[in-house]
Amino acid sequence: MISVADARAALLDLVKPLDVETLRLADTAGRVLATSVSARRDQPPFDASAMDGYAVNAAEVEQHAMFKVVGEAAAGHGFQGRVGAGQAVRIFTGAPVPQGASFVVIQEDVHRKGDLITLSNDPGTNSNIRARGCDFAVGQTVTAPRRLSPADVALLAAMNIAELPVRRRPVVALLSTGDELVMPGQTPGPDQIIVSNTFGLKALLEQHGAEVRVLPIARDTDSALRTAFTLAEGADLVVTIGGASVGDHDLVAGVAQSLGLERSFYKVAMRPGKPLMAGRFGPRAMVGLPGNPVSAMVCGRLFVVPMVEAMLGLPDQPDRLKRAPLAIALPRNGPRAHYMRAMWTGDRLTPFDNQDSSLLSVLAQAEALVLHPPNAPAAAVDDLVEYLTL
Amino acid sequence: MISVADARAALLDLVKPLDVETLRLADTAGRVLATSVSARRDQPPFDASAMDGYAVNAAEVEQHAMFKVVGEAAAGHGFQGRVGAGQAVRIFTGAPVPQGASFVVIQEDVHRKGDLITLSNDPGTNSNIRARGCDFAVGQTVTAPRRLSPADVALLAAMNIAELPVRRRPVVALLSTGDELVMPGQTPGPDQIIVSNTFGLKALLEQHGAEVRVLPIARDTDSALRTAFTLAEGADLVVTIGGASVGDHDLVAGVAQSLGLERSFYKVAMRPGKPLMAGRFGPRAMVGLPGNPVSAMVCGRLFVVPMVEAMLGLPDQPDRLKRAPLAIALPRNGPRAHYMRAMWTGDRLTPFDNQDSSLLSVLAQAEALVLHPPNAPAAAVDDLVEYLTL
Repeated sequence: MISVADARAALLDLVKPLDVETLRLADTAGRVLATSVSARRDQPPFDASAMDGYAVNAAEVEQHAMFKVVGEAAAGHGFQGRVGAGQAVRIFTGAPVPQGASFVVIQEDVHRKGDLITLSNDPGTNSNIRARGCDFAVGQTVTAPRRLSPADVALLAAMNIAELPVRRRPVVALLSTGDELVMPGQTPGPDQIIVSNTFGLKALLEQHGAEVRVLPIARDTDSALRTAFTLAEGADLVVTIGGASVGDHDLVAGVAQSLGLERSFYKVAMRPGKPLMAGRFGPRAMVGLPGNPVSAMVCGRLFVVPMVEAMLGLPDQPDRLKRAPLAIALPRNGPRAHYMRAMWTGDRLTPFDNQDSSLLSVLAQAEALVLHPPNAPAAAVDDLVEYLTL
Repeated sequence: MISVADARAALLDLVKPLDVETLRLADTAGRVLATSVSARRDQPPFDASAMDGYAVNAAEVEQHAMFKVVGEAAAGHGFQGRVGAGQAVRIFTGAPVPQGASFVVIQEDVHRKGDLITLSNDPGTNSNIRARGCDFAVGQTVTAPRRLSPADVALLAAMNIAELPVRRRPVVALLSTGDELVMPGQTPGPDQIIVSNTFGLKALLEQHGAEVRVLPIARDTDSALRTAFTLAEGADLVVTIGGASVGDHDLVAGVAQSLGLERSFYKVAMRPGKPLMAGRFGPRAMVGLPGNPVSAMVCGRLFVVPMVEAMLGLPDQPDRLKRAPLAIALPRNGPRAHYMRAMWTGDRLTPFDNQDSSLLSVLAQAEALVLHPPNAPAAAVDDLVEYLTL
């Protein structure tokens, strides 16, 4: 058995960053920046007023001082002249501070009569001016690779970057196998169940940036599997679900090998999970997930999501697990890492009693996976454990 | 000034849950379930084997016992007969446990020769059988409202629910105002800047389930604003950005009122933020956000996202803030709640030094907003603070 970290590394070896495509900025949220980009301008592009008020020379600012208002500076419409001694310019938030001015007295500190103002309150020492380039200067970069957040998109807009190079979405083909499976909406036979992993994994991988193609369910025959694999043509990654372990009815590995899969097989020291089949399959990668619903989803999260991220060009960054205290005690763990479905109880995490890997109802309620490491000793209430948010 | 909680409540009063639409299950991840749905079947639908092995009568299970293998049960193909005394059925994971059997001996504990098996190891007390309905039973509900996670989608598939009632996406029209603004890719005049809030808010609101329509930038004239508002026809919520405070060049409120806005105006005791304009605007709601980039994004997160969630039918559930220790000390706070951009330093949060509301570069780096409550005393390193993940 190999560790979760070693299995992850072996799987990441099967994929590499995909091509770059150029998108309009408005379409890039959640996408991964492929090459670093630089600000085309300073922000603000001029010394700008941070408040509504009056722009004056800082040297003349003191309580009771009087100024003559000689003009106005609004956002988008600066004052074209120069502010001389004893002069002030009415100014609004975001407007360029006029030449000769170096202080904005906020309007609440001013008494105005006609075109004369008096500083009726102590204006303090804050100039209320944002210096040119204080947010960013020309050439400042947003560094790739980076998954673009809403704030990143706002920042790139302010930098006047209208189009962006991003990695194209990895195409993942999902192939559920098994005579026991039928699609939702169909009427299952007495020995059948409804396929669920495909739908859950599709949602999970799309959430992380993949484009998912759901293939028809493959029956447990060589020919059905062969046909199914031909439908995966063009995908960057083929993920099979079920049929990949060592049972007599598990044909996937054999068929895939006859079609050219260079097969690796990993027994991973984890629960839920167990065997993973993987390998290079012509121009693409292939991963075989266990058919148990919860195992498939947890292995999808721990192994397939990082492969998607690697194809998006993101650095290999093992999940940064946070720590939180336990609300209940845990017994000592065996040799396999146990990813326990858990929910929050206030600020503490409560793993569910029944961790059986068939229980989707428990997975759907779970808010986090608590990691009970291999051979960990028993943990007490309030002991800190690492967890992964679901 | 009113509190953040009171402002939020006033804004939520302006919206209500939208209509319901029916979608295919595969399209529902991230959408909000509008009415509760019930499982159409038990899962598993029969007592099912949890392992590959041999199904026998539990009463006959003991080390060295011998059985005759009389048939096979695979996933999708049960054994049709009854398992009699001294008999075993070869069984695979997910197969129905045949009549007469009540225990699955795992294959690793069995020695097989021809059609005879001997229990070569102690088979233990775990029957390796998943009881019918142990995951869920017919009629078990997934309760609305609920934003559907990947695991929920998997669970609903297993329940054989092929189509789902979800709330339609709220249509939000975003209107940036100001003579100082130009679109990314254009060449700004010397007094102009690039519009950024629209792009950041679009990404933010789409992330939370809205369909966002970006209107052309409105210039600072009555007629430009009137035209812009007509383009918002059909939206459920109009969000204006900038032009909504009390400056002489802030025309939005006046124009909106002349077009029928029943205006409310809130001075909110928060930083960044300050004035919010809001009201009922014919059949829709309107919110006016401050034009400062960071203020707009933070107010978008704290106020507009909850409005989107309310239109999606989600319950009013103030952000459940988590707590984490501070990596640096904070001075005591004034009367306004301060939402401080912060990043993680290990398990602790470090608010950035410069919290000026114009700094998008700081927002883009931030991983969380630390809440320094109104009039909070100074906080020391390692004091717990509430935060909101960005």
